[in-house]
Amino acid sequence: MQFEIRHQDGLARGGRLTLDRGVVETPIFMPVGTAATVKAVTAEELCELGAEIILANTFHLMLRPGTAVIHAHGGLHQFMHWERPILTDSGGFQVWSLARSRQVNEQGVRFRSPVDGELVFLGPEESIGVQHALGSDIVMVFDECTTYPASRQQARASMELSLRWASRSKCTHGTSTKALFGIVQGGVYQDLRRESLLGLAGLGFDGYAIGGLSVGESKAEMAQVLTDLVPNMPVQRPRYLMGVGTPEDIVAGVMQGIDMFDCVLPTRNARNGWLYTRDGIVKIRNSRFASDTSPVDAGCHCYCCRHYSRAYLRHLQQSNEILGARLCTIHNLQYYLDLVRDLRQAIAAGRVADFSADFFSRRGVSWPTVA
Amino acid sequence: MQFEIRHQDGLARGGRLTLDRGVVETPIFMPVGTAATVKAVTAEELCELGAEIILANTFHLMLRPGTAVIHAHGGLHQFMHWERPILTDSGGFQVWSLARSRQVNEQGVRFRSPVDGELVFLGPEESIGVQHALGSDIVMVFDECTTYPASRQQARASMELSLRWASRSKCTHGTSTKALFGIVQGGVYQDLRRESLLGLAGLGFDGYAIGGLSVGESKAEMAQVLTDLVPNMPVQRPRYLMGVGTPEDIVAGVMQGIDMFDCVLPTRNARNGWLYTRDGIVKIRNSRFASDTSPVDAGCHCYCCRHYSRAYLRHLQQSNEILGARLCTIHNLQYYLDLVRDLRQAIAAGRVADFSADFFSRRGVSWPTVA
Repeated sequence: MQFEIRHQDGLARGGRLTLDRGVVETPIFMPVGTAATVKAVTAEELCELGAEIILANTFHLMLRPGTAVIHAHGGLHQFMHWERPILTDSGGFQVWSLARSRQVNEQGVRFRSPVDGELVFLGPEESIGVQHALGSDIVMVFDECTTYPASRQQARASMELSLRWASRSKCTHGTSTKALFGIVQGGVYQDLRRESLLGLAGLGFDGYAIGGLSVGESKAEMAQVLTDLVPNMPVQRPRYLMGVGTPEDIVAGVMQGIDMFDCVLPTRNARNGWLYTRDGIVKIRNSRFASDTSPVDAGCHCYCCRHYSRAYLRHLQQSNEILGARLCTIHNLQYYLDLVRDLRQAIAAGRVADFSADFFSRRGVSWPTVA
Repeated sequence: MQFEIRHQDGLARGGRLTLDRGVVETPIFMPVGTAATVKAVTAEELCELGAEIILANTFHLMLRPGTAVIHAHGGLHQFMHWERPILTDSGGFQVWSLARSRQVNEQGVRFRSPVDGELVFLGPEESIGVQHALGSDIVMVFDECTTYPASRQQARASMELSLRWASRSKCTHGTSTKALFGIVQGGVYQDLRRESLLGLAGLGFDGYAIGGLSVGESKAEMAQVLTDLVPNMPVQRPRYLMGVGTPEDIVAGVMQGIDMFDCVLPTRNARNGWLYTRDGIVKIRNSRFASDTSPVDAGCHCYCCRHYSRAYLRHLQQSNEILGARLCTIHNLQYYLDLVRDLRQAIAAGRVADFSADFFSRRGVSWPTVA
């Protein structure tokens, strides 16, 4: 993996990530393909939308269909018919948020599968092993997501455990040519976050992620973590803000120097009829769109906006039609991928501060660190 | 509308239907787009599958989103982004199968909408009016679907009512340049079916449909109706067997001289993981496909079979992923559309009897009129 910073505009960075399976221009948004499919869309549609890399989940895939099935296909790319890069989450976050009867010890986590109730064990060696079997292009260390709220003592213990697991993850990763990213933990405690970062940097990773945010803390707390942490992250390595977030979060994150994002919001909200536009969210099930023959966003060039009206999308949503989920997903992903493309262009042109100001002003909202 | 019979092979016919919006080679299968969408697929995908005409439902569309909304878009084609011909069912069958508190009188049917419980009235004038507003290419007369079982007296009264409604449908259709098809009723009574056909032929329609089958009668009863009725249908007009059926029904129907078919089976079964192949049905949720890296049908050229394995499709079905419904729908529609294409080619080559014999032998099944 190579990472080159090509433009700098304030704290914001425009970069290029070169992986075996393709080039990723940053800042980038990674659509989430939890269960070996970005929900409702095909690989060809993702390519047309401009997706350069997607995320998949170790936790879900090891439980269903199981690593062996995917490995028998030659890996996740072949299994799901996606040729471009894939970043795999390590399962640390999902163990924390989805597993039943979770028991954590030094070795790893034992839990009951939400799929079939079976007892499963996942530790750093197991997680990295699964990610290698999947053929992941960017492997994430196995970490413990620190609960919010957590006392300083709890957050320290959890962060230190994650550091030890990061070290074991790196050992297991060995001489693999795939990228391995560390994950900074530490809750909302600045000193713990810095200690986590220093520990990870000492081990040495291809990229650094910020985990344990968007887990219940306030936007102000999240902003404070970023403001303090991001400037201290290794300059020459990609910075990945995990599981974040809204369009506002992404613009604010880029302004702080983040390079990579992933989030289920555009795809999940699409299925519920919440559509992103440059002027804010359109809730397409609202009766005021019943006869609206205009597209969701007249300025959008996506397949949905080129061919279908708000009234048609509303009708599909009201009728629970699969095509509704498809079209809304395409639109929302186009919005997110256009947003990061616009951010990249603004950074290259040295006008990202103006872009950010216009973005927040047009939407009539602010973000803690921007206000 | 023009209809030309280009090949005759036994009772089977190879024809060409020319409509304002496109040419339809017959025998043809029409994918069902009940609510202004063929479930799970786009217009572009339907075109790639080789669909030349689709069916939509007056009953569903008048209730949701309502005729006015569709008319405001310039018609159903624009509303749903489908440029090729559309045949609209009149609502007669759906009133019979879906409406609550149905009350039939000479004027038409009063019922409660299954969408919102509102009282709705539908008669021949209303149905034809809706179909005109939708911009349908082939309009169906409003009929009463005769219940099965029905006494001869009930079947006669129902058939005669349908004849009077057919006459009123034709009056309302007036000088429209769109096609209008009559619908033969009469239950399983041969003499009533012939009387219905004679009455319709006397009125004069662009095509003739057989309604009131696949409503509970046995395959043998259905076969008997077809054997007796089809040879008496006007030779120069397209013959449409409504709501039928399985691949076996289609081959048997073509062998009797039927030109047009529609059915929800390929799309509905796809969503439940029942996949059609030349060797019979593959129930993809079966655990024996868990690690099967082969496509559903190695001889199939559809998008699903070109890129995805049985194991992947099973995984998507197990995970209730929308992409699973999409891929399975594409495969099943390809199967049906390839089947009618193969039948057309066999008819043109004068070998449809061999084709039919091979078809039933390979699947290890028989059909009453074929056995």
